[in-house]
Amino acid sequence: MDEFNASVMFDKELYLQDIKGSIAHSKMLALQGIITTEDQTKIEEGLLKVKDEIENGDFIWKIEDEDVHMAIENRLTAIIGDAGGRLHTARSRNDQVATDFALYVQDKTLVIKNKLKVLIQTLVDIASKHTDTLIPGMTHLQHAQPINFGFHLMAYANMFKRDFDRFESSYSRNNICPLGSAALAGTPHNIDRFKTAELLGFDSPTLSALDTSSNRDFALEILFNISTSMMHISRLSEELILWSSYEFGFVKISDEYATTSSIMPQKKNPDVPELLRGKTGRVYGNLMSLLTVMKGLPLAYNKDTQEDKEGVFDSVATMEISLDIITAVMDTLIIKVEAMEEACKVGHLSATDLADYLVQKANIPFRKAYYITKDVVELSNSLNKDMSELNINEIRKIDELKDIDKDIIEYLDLRNSMNARDSFGGTSNQRTLEQIDIFKNWLKDN
Amino acid sequence: MDEFNASVMFDKELYLQDIKGSIAHSKMLALQGIITTEDQTKIEEGLLKVKDEIENGDFIWKIEDEDVHMAIENRLTAIIGDAGGRLHTARSRNDQVATDFALYVQDKTLVIKNKLKVLIQTLVDIASKHTDTLIPGMTHLQHAQPINFGFHLMAYANMFKRDFDRFESSYSRNNICPLGSAALAGTPHNIDRFKTAELLGFDSPTLSALDTSSNRDFALEILFNISTSMMHISRLSEELILWSSYEFGFVKISDEYATTSSIMPQKKNPDVPELLRGKTGRVYGNLMSLLTVMKGLPLAYNKDTQEDKEGVFDSVATMEISLDIITAVMDTLIIKVEAMEEACKVGHLSATDLADYLVQKANIPFRKAYYITKDVVELSNSLNKDMSELNINEIRKIDELKDIDKDIIEYLDLRNSMNARDSFGGTSNQRTLEQIDIFKNWLKDN
Amino acid sequence: MDEFNASVMFDKELYLQDIKGSIAHSKMLALQGIITTEDQTKIEEGLLKVKDEIENGDFIWKIEDEDVHMAIENRLTAIIGDAGGRLHTARSRNDQVATDFALYVQDKTLVIKNKLKVLIQTLVDIASKHTDTLIPGMTHLQHAQPINFGFHLMAYANMFKRDFDRFESSYSRNNICPLGSAALAGTPHNIDRFKTAELLGFDSPTLSALDTSSNRDFALEILFNISTSMMHISRLSEELILWSSYEFGFVKISDEYATTSSIMPQKKNPDVPELLRGKTGRVYGNLMSLLTVMKGLPLAYNKDTQEDKEGVFDSVATMEISLDIITAVMDTLIIKVEAMEEACKVGHLSATDLADYLVQKANIPFRKAYYITKDVVELSNSLNKDMSELNINEIRKIDELKDIDKDIIEYLDLRNSMNARDSFGGTSNQRTLEQIDIFKNWLKDN
Amino acid sequence: MDEFNASVMFDKELYLQDIKGSIAHSKMLALQGIITTEDQTKIEEGLLKVKDEIENGDFIWKIEDEDVHMAIENRLTAIIGDAGGRLHTARSRNDQVATDFALYVQDKTLVIKNKLKVLIQTLVDIASKHTDTLIPGMTHLQHAQPINFGFHLMAYANMFKRDFDRFESSYSRNNICPLGSAALAGTPHNIDRFKTAELLGFDSPTLSALDTSSNRDFALEILFNISTSMMHISRLSEELILWSSYEFGFVKISDEYATTSSIMPQKKNPDVPELLRGKTGRVYGNLMSLLTVMKGLPLAYNKDTQEDKEGVFDSVATMEISLDIITAVMDTLIIKVEAMEEACKVGHLSATDLADYLVQKANIPFRKAYYITKDVVELSNSLNKDMSELNINEIRKIDELKDIDKDIIEYLDLRNSMNARDSFGGTSNQRTLEQIDIFKNWLKDN
Repeated sequence: MDEFNASVMFDKELYLQDIKGSIAHSKMLALQGIITTEDQTKIEEGLLKVKDEIENGDFIWKIEDEDVHMAIENRLTAIIGDAGGRLHTARSRNDQVATDFALYVQDKTLVIKNKLKVLIQTLVDIASKHTDTLIPGMTHLQHAQPINFGFHLMAYANMFKRDFDRFESSYSRNNICPLGSAALAGTPHNIDRFKTAELLGFDSPTLSALDTSSNRDFALEILFNISTSMMHISRLSEELILWSSYEFGFVKISDEYATTSSIMPQKKNPDVPELLRGKTGRVYGNLMSLLTVMKGLPLAYNKDTQEDKEGVFDSVATMEISLDIITAVMDTLIIKVEAMEEACKVGHLSATDLADYLVQKANIPFRKAYYITKDVVELSNSLNKDMSELNINEIRKIDELKDIDKDIIEYLDLRNSMNARDSFGGTSNQRTLEQIDIFKNWLKDN
Repeated sequence: MDEFNASVMFDKELYLQDIKGSIAHSKMLALQGIITTEDQTKIEEGLLKVKDEIENGDFIWKIEDEDVHMAIENRLTAIIGDAGGRLHTARSRNDQVATDFALYVQDKTLVIKNKLKVLIQTLVDIASKHTDTLIPGMTHLQHAQPINFGFHLMAYANMFKRDFDRFESSYSRNNICPLGSAALAGTPHNIDRFKTAELLGFDSPTLSALDTSSNRDFALEILFNISTSMMHISRLSEELILWSSYEFGFVKISDEYATTSSIMPQKKNPDVPELLRGKTGRVYGNLMSLLTVMKGLPLAYNKDTQEDKEGVFDSVATMEISLDIITAVMDTLIIKVEAMEEACKVGHLSATDLADYLVQKANIPFRKAYYITKDVVELSNSLNKDMSELNINEIRKIDELKDIDKDIIEYLDLRNSMNARDSFGGTSNQRTLEQIDIFKNWLKDN
Repeated sequence: MDEFNASVMFDKELYLQDIKGSIAHSKMLALQGIITTEDQTKIEEGLLKVKDEIENGDFIWKIEDEDVHMAIENRLTAIIGDAGGRLHTARSRNDQVATDFALYVQDKTLVIKNKLKVLIQTLVDIASKHTDTLIPGMTHLQHAQPINFGFHLMAYANMFKRDFDRFESSYSRNNICPLGSAALAGTPHNIDRFKTAELLGFDSPTLSALDTSSNRDFALEILFNISTSMMHISRLSEELILWSSYEFGFVKISDEYATTSSIMPQKKNPDVPELLRGKTGRVYGNLMSLLTVMKGLPLAYNKDTQEDKEGVFDSVATMEISLDIITAVMDTLIIKVEAMEEACKVGHLSATDLADYLVQKANIPFRKAYYITKDVVELSNSLNKDMSELNINEIRKIDELKDIDKDIIEYLDLRNSMNARDSFGGTSNQRTLEQIDIFKNWLKDN
Repeated sequence: MDEFNASVMFDKELYLQDIKGSIAHSKMLALQGIITTEDQTKIEEGLLKVKDEIENGDFIWKIEDEDVHMAIENRLTAIIGDAGGRLHTARSRNDQVATDFALYVQDKTLVIKNKLKVLIQTLVDIASKHTDTLIPGMTHLQHAQPINFGFHLMAYANMFKRDFDRFESSYSRNNICPLGSAALAGTPHNIDRFKTAELLGFDSPTLSALDTSSNRDFALEILFNISTSMMHISRLSEELILWSSYEFGFVKISDEYATTSSIMPQKKNPDVPELLRGKTGRVYGNLMSLLTVMKGLPLAYNKDTQEDKEGVFDSVATMEISLDIITAVMDTLIIKVEAMEEACKVGHLSATDLADYLVQKANIPFRKAYYITKDVVELSNSLNKDMSELNINEIRKIDELKDIDKDIIEYLDLRNSMNARDSFGGTSNQRTLEQIDIFKNWLKDN
């Protein structure tokens, strides 16, 4: 029964935030004359001692203490005596737990933002080296148009930057301090909530004590932000798995992040990207869990809300390690430039360019150009060549093209085709470098 | 098979955005000299005609057209001839659908923001009238401390304002224009994506064509924002259901929003809040659906993404009607002030005040005060009274209180107890009015 | 990195199944002459020694061992030498992990079934004592018709029996043995999969080695069954929370399962049912996680699947403790019979009976009867009485009823009203006892 | 507001079940003497007329009718007069809707079971033709061991058979009739619920009227069963997408189910399997929706439950069309046998066989055999050959193998390697045929 009710075995994760919050609260109480400066000093020193004990592994977590807050308060009182009891003046378990949790989410948001930046930097670095490396641009997993590999990686840099922006936005939206809301209705003590907020790095106190005690929007937001970011990681992981298959052969995952089979010496498994892809499931589940918990709860605090933490801890830990790992995988990735370029010669990737040429240069209506292109595709197939490898004589075998200008051959060249897509955000070498520059500047400024 | 593949029967919801997007695209093409001004004029007039046909019900949606984009383009070409074909220059289905969908999400975000404001205004109006109406403040659905009903309602105003802020934030974060990304890699045409973005009210074009074609973060964000907001509505609904039960009897839902039983003439059912509570399920489900769809998709566009729209349409429609309905329910709610106040006399709501009094005025240590309070609770129970109804002589029957100051009685008064919680964000009349003022100013400024 | 890849820190939960599976495998290998009897004996003794070490806490779990299987195998080899290496003949990590996990799910299914039976027994016992205790039957949380409390509890007994049936069904459907499927395609060794299946209590081996290695349907089934069962618990919990509020006052949760506020000595919180209700979220989340993981995985084993276990362990542990706890809460519940019966006098619960009487006895068309009933409701309200408390003279004040037979009064009696609903499955005393008997027989037979 | 409350616009899907249920109810009422035979005849004829009107498109669905039940009842009364009103004797909207919905779920379960059988038959048919077609068996999307394509397809047959079994199981578990439970507590009328159950094809009536009115377990079960089945379809779809890529080139999706790009004449997109994979999201979402709706609902009927239907309708429709489509896609699939076999020569698929040979025939300890195999892998790579293509002289270049028996070459042969895995459920030709036979018999018997 104690085991069922108690949260101390998982919410001890909040010890740092709990101590930080209590020190700030005691300082404010002393400034307001609610406790004496001597008591405040004792409390602060006591709490720092408890912190040391926890970090040295000397602290004994007991299920009877029920939660991290009581565990620390009981130990504090054991160390400093009566003064410890005064710490809980003008606050309740409800606003204390909300504050600790909010601090945790904010702290972790900053950590995640930094890790996202490191990942983006890594992608930008690799992209910089591959703005001229051709790879088949795909839709529907079918070869579509030639793009450069730097351009491909920058798509992910854009996703992770959006994630960064979302974390930044939720951080600033939720940077408000629950402390001082007390159980549900505020307190008769003459506290200064703006001071506590300031001491803890929040922008201001929350506005409604009643709302505060059961508000978990900030927890939902971090769960959602993590879900979206892990979804992006799952997409990159999927591509790494595909690319490292025999069939694609575009990359080799460094031995450190691939696993050898214990019975097949020739086999390397992309375990790491597979696990990353799989971990998307758990963070989706955590989001769904808390949404379910919060549905239909009357005001104000209900014990259901105790179920808010484990999922957040788990999603945060998953996000942190996943970002570290995917960054390391990318950083050590062996890129098989030749295989990528070779693959571009399959699928007549310059077919669109041929049609465009016919429309623009030869003034042929698009519908007709489309059918001529189809003929050229068939011709290429019959010659066992990719369209990009045709010469002018071969092209001219097509009736409608028998008088065609020689420069058509240039348009069919894969690298020319890639560089032709030169609109803002396009794959041309120029535009990819422009995109990379924008990211480099952003990285410098953030 | 056509039925399986085609999306026209649901994505016709996007007709307005599709036409708006095409007009902007044609204007840009003309400005850049890619099409002639004459063609642009024909295209624009043709599209406006199609719009009229759709809005008049004269347009025939055909499954063979596959999607809203082809349906409109085919009709346009039927009306204006060859010029219609030129509209699709320098764009592809991929960036067109992304643009339409982004425009839709942005349009609807503004609509939802407005409806949230109307709801907040309604809550603020009612709250203004009830800052002195007592109601039992609850935690764990147990009476805890006396609060005022205005304060209670303002907790919801705070929730819905957070929702508003989230919609505002996702709006500005996602106010970027996909158009011109083409299929996946940009286009060789000399387009001006900044111009198209400007014409459509976006801040700028998206940065990576490859990322753009399969980015659905903006759709996930609106699904999440709606989920959180519906969760808040489900909590208010739960309270309305509880409050309108015989047992609570705090409110009466207006006859317009309650249903009479067809066999029990005495029975009124809170169908509307129940439905609102139930609809939380569907918007959660829609969020989970799209998260699932996006997991592990390789770049760039995959047909899976066609599954993004129905869920968003459904969640948006649910959000819109739910906001209208909950606003109307609140607006017409009959509030039984006396029943609320009567309920405050159950559960010794001023017990905390007694303990506080003993600590602060009589200098009794909290632990002892707690046990004295417990004795007073038992005394009250034996007298069949609430603690707030005791007189000084009764209080003094408790040994430790036999010399207690008469003013203790004032502290036990429920209204005094409510007003004592005067910290920032607290329930006191003063603080509730302050909170209301902050909201009134915000409403004026937004 | 090791930390990321390794599963040993959570899959050690499977140590018993792993040892059981290995012993059976070794027995079969010996029977088939693939290993010697001496080696088999050594292996079995060694494994039992490892089991002892684990259960005594002497076993050292090391992250380098990666998973529970290697941890045990390495220790086995350390104890018995070379023979240990022969254990892995004709099996692979893939079928081993599938077997361990299947055994775990089967074992736990039996445990859960037993706990469900205990809960059902408890409900039946309480119901037996309250087949004549009136409580307002509600729809829409509004008083509808008088029922007996035993009948009310039996509704939950029915839900939990359905859960039992689902667990029973998934148990028998999934009672098939993965072992011998090897990595993905079977093994060249002359193994006897039927023997291994038999030794492990399975009905037969699985049919397709390829399917087996990535089949996790059995895990999804237990996650779903637990979700549905926790949903039922959440409904009972909701009612316990409502019933123990001041407003309802129908029950008192025993002090052991309610928590006293640390600052409000008069307050008892239904923490336990709230937590139970909240825990519904986590099991829903675990289901959603595994569904997400499995989506779109190509054959056969992929490392994503390693994410299958933690969620199942967590849901199983949640289900087990929740069943124990809800059983204990019900077992010690204080039922306030008088308050329940008193509540029946609010809301004119016999209104339907009056209408029925008028139709059947007085031959008045239903539509008219409905309006007469409405008049009687209003009359009762004006007399400040419940309809069930009216006397014949009062009834006859209604014009249409002025010559009505005296026996109408009996029909308005609440207990008579309850007993009148005597159809199969109805609330009458008789039918409730019949239902209880059916359950008692079922409990005896299962 | 009507629009918000009314369900008629979607629950009209239940018209057939509603009419079927009403006819059975009227028959029972007549048999019990509760209504006259004349009235019953009128009712039945009237209902059949309404059915015709609906099916001919002559019926006008009106939002004011609120739900399908009132729409039909109102029309019935318009047609046959007063007798129509008697139909509602001894039932309530609550048990009527539960009955209609249960009938719908049962009806659709049978339809789905049949479609699953057709799909299984199709897979078995193709498998029968390809028990000797080699394809690389993969784990982690890496070549592992040679298997036959028939064996691969049979893995899916096994999945879909499990789905079939689950639908069968939920069908029989839920084949109980809600009708006669009335609003929540049964009815005073002398009805015969066993008779109604029998007339409707149910095994028996439900046991608790109170439980019945808000039980939606059967709806959750079909949603879960569909989710699992769509998950299986998503896996097959993923493989179809991979296999039809240029890189794999194992299959060609028939032109009917692949889409040509409007600008790239050379490009065929596997739109259909992509859509199937995407549709997994929506059915997961529908499951999550209803789980959310049901969480924490007090007894008995609450309007929240009205949210149960749309998700089930949507999942059922998705399942039906998805089964038809995937069956057709498989049926028309072009299988590139040579490409599959060619792919087997990449990745040294017989490496395990070599190691096994060395252990079993040459009595070399496994650890050493593993390293020899590794050397052979490197040798093959240096010769630009797959291990299966080595000749005896090349093999003997490895020091440890210089005296090796010539028959080693046979063991490296890919087809021999496949056939060597001859354990029950293994990939050998023999075992695959055995598996196919088991399925053929099952198909005959079901």
